[in-house]
Amino acid sequence: MSKKLTIGLFGFGVVGQGLYDIIKTKNLNIEIKKIAIKDAGKERSLPASYFTTDKDELLNDPEINTIIELINDTEAAFEIASRALSSGKSVVSASKKMIALHLEELLKLQDQYDTSLLYEGAVCGSIPIIRNLEEYYDNELLHSICGIFNGSSNYILSKGFLEGMDYATALKQAQDLGFAETDPTMDVGGYDAKFKLIIAAAHAYGVVVEPEAVLNLGIENLAADDIQYAREKGLKIKLVPVAKELDDEHVALFVMPKLVTPDEFLYNVEYEYNGVIVQAAFADQQFFFGKGAGGHPTGSAVLSDVAALRYDYQYEYKKLRTNKGLKFTNDIELCVYLRYEDDELVEALEFVEIKERYYSGSYKYIIGKLKLSKLIDNKQRISDQKAFLAFADQLTGVSLVSAK
Amino acid sequence: MSKKLTIGLFGFGVVGQGLYDIIKTKNLNIEIKKIAIKDAGKERSLPASYFTTDKDELLNDPEINTIIELINDTEAAFEIASRALSSGKSVVSASKKMIALHLEELLKLQDQYDTSLLYEGAVCGSIPIIRNLEEYYDNELLHSICGIFNGSSNYILSKGFLEGMDYATALKQAQDLGFAETDPTMDVGGYDAKFKLIIAAAHAYGVVVEPEAVLNLGIENLAADDIQYAREKGLKIKLVPVAKELDDEHVALFVMPKLVTPDEFLYNVEYEYNGVIVQAAFADQQFFFGKGAGGHPTGSAVLSDVAALRYDYQYEYKKLRTNKGLKFTNDIELCVYLRYEDDELVEALEFVEIKERYYSGSYKYIIGKLKLSKLIDNKQRISDQKAFLAFADQLTGVSLVSAK
Repeated sequence: MSKKLTIGLFGFGVVGQGLYDIIKTKNLNIEIKKIAIKDAGKERSLPASYFTTDKDELLNDPEINTIIELINDTEAAFEIASRALSSGKSVVSASKKMIALHLEELLKLQDQYDTSLLYEGAVCGSIPIIRNLEEYYDNELLHSICGIFNGSSNYILSKGFLEGMDYATALKQAQDLGFAETDPTMDVGGYDAKFKLIIAAAHAYGVVVEPEAVLNLGIENLAADDIQYAREKGLKIKLVPVAKELDDEHVALFVMPKLVTPDEFLYNVEYEYNGVIVQAAFADQQFFFGKGAGGHPTGSAVLSDVAALRYDYQYEYKKLRTNKGLKFTNDIELCVYLRYEDDELVEALEFVEIKERYYSGSYKYIIGKLKLSKLIDNKQRISDQKAFLAFADQLTGVSLVSAK
Repeated sequence: MSKKLTIGLFGFGVVGQGLYDIIKTKNLNIEIKKIAIKDAGKERSLPASYFTTDKDELLNDPEINTIIELINDTEAAFEIASRALSSGKSVVSASKKMIALHLEELLKLQDQYDTSLLYEGAVCGSIPIIRNLEEYYDNELLHSICGIFNGSSNYILSKGFLEGMDYATALKQAQDLGFAETDPTMDVGGYDAKFKLIIAAAHAYGVVVEPEAVLNLGIENLAADDIQYAREKGLKIKLVPVAKELDDEHVALFVMPKLVTPDEFLYNVEYEYNGVIVQAAFADQQFFFGKGAGGHPTGSAVLSDVAALRYDYQYEYKKLRTNKGLKFTNDIELCVYLRYEDDELVEALEFVEIKERYYSGSYKYIIGKLKLSKLIDNKQRISDQKAFLAFADQLTGVSLVSAK
């Protein structure tokens, strides 16, 4: 039978409001008791007695057995989550950055206090990817995960590719629609996608990786030349996080723009949609598709997590606990498209193999193979030069290999 | 920690062979001990000592704790599954018809002997839809499930729509590729999709429905006129099973061709692919996409089930056990496109409302609203007249409603 949940809710924006409405109308055995907000002055749709600006009123209330955390501040979110878990309350959170940064500690707290932290809403909106990686795909049988994890940068890319809109206008639109994070670097720089990738990798492969150790290149430097190049070749550019098992001992992670061919599932993922491709045993591809940005998709995932807590659902982190030595590595080679200004960058990257090289007065590019570590070493240089880089394995027929 | 599985395998076709290969190379703590086959004379890739034609050698072997059942014969499959479950063995099966017909008994056996029957491979190939309905989507929050559940009929429709191929040639090709069941009526008549729908509905809504009670109309009577009609309107025709919650007490199920608009996810599901749309709380649509027919997708799902058995995974059938009175009903109205020969059929169907009516010498159609029960009463008449019927709610802006 289901357990009655008495909820303390942090944050009352689109998601919080929507959650309240559904919980009220549906017969879920869930009650929202108190809502913590930052701004006491704002007009609310509920009686004032629901609200407080004092987080302790929720965290110290013994009747509240479940905390839903939907706030923007990473460190405040971590404090709420860890205090709640430590006092025996279950937590549902949608803060990917907080979870990616503190995964190790959050795992320990769940173990120590036998409490449950669920966060489906933190990764790819309504797509239940964490649950599927956690429950369904055995790591031995999982070749890779990749996808479009950030709706905001995908929206910008779609506007550019499909409508010819320039970058700045598209970014502004994404922000106006509520798809983009307050700091656009999080989205367009690939940080948001990286946090999600790190969370997914923990459930897919049982590895806990520091965000700092994982390369993320974004779409900030995408130029008209790059779009034209892709168009002429019948390709699109997408921002794609990748987790790939190289062998029985190594898994590689990175976030990078990717040149996508029309026969790839991601080719048709446009605007604020997210898509996840799971490549599993029998070389079979599974594609999960849904809205990735905005309040409703997140709300849908948060609500599913809350519903599961009524049955005391916990992530088992089975793969973490039984990890037989699968380790994260950056020691791989990959093929990239690089548009650059100065030859000095090309030299610094020490290409192992150059497959194509083109230059005219204003536009120079290389397609070639290099070590991921060289990209990591030269991240600042790439950024300073406003060079644009995209993963291009699909094109060259080369697949990710260990650099050894 | 994972449990060692010792497996008795029934059937050694593409799926069985592929399973064997993967289990051998991966470190899964799984051993295939014995394989039961029908034809002892066929040449095999493994030593003869692996094979037997005597099912008792597997079912009576106390060392074998897991049965994988991949045979074609429904009643033989049921005997194997029920004997195995009754003797404490876990079972993985891909026989949708067997499971849909015997769901009630299979549930009882699992309860009585505390054994586990998993069957992800029976529904939509590699798409983990059963697991997601079972684990992730609460029935209170699940508005509807629909999709393309039969790769073979979808292949035929794609051949017709995209390549102008005639029905008989397309069917022959689907069979040659191993997508079609031996009896094509199972695929093109919507029976296969119906069995899958019934299994999905048990996990989605906690209802066990007799296959006989659910209407299935197929694509056998699809004519060039229907394809032309759809093309002119910018639509496609897909064979779509639907499960929809009408209110807190009623859920409707049916399988029917559907006129699909370009903004629906299913519009782009072509050939042997399957797609499942889950409409959940916050009115958010989740789309699962993958190969639905052929040995590899099924093998991938079977393997995931087997891997889960190492951790004693069982379906909880939570929604069945806590069902608060959600019941199956055929008491709904819906909008259809009907191409017909004889006015007598139109009269018999007692349209509640006619929205469009067209006739020329050779081509007559109606778009209108009618009771599902009238379609059920007149199924034979529809078939005799070679009339073609497609669900058209999307077009008319009408949504399924209870007929009351």
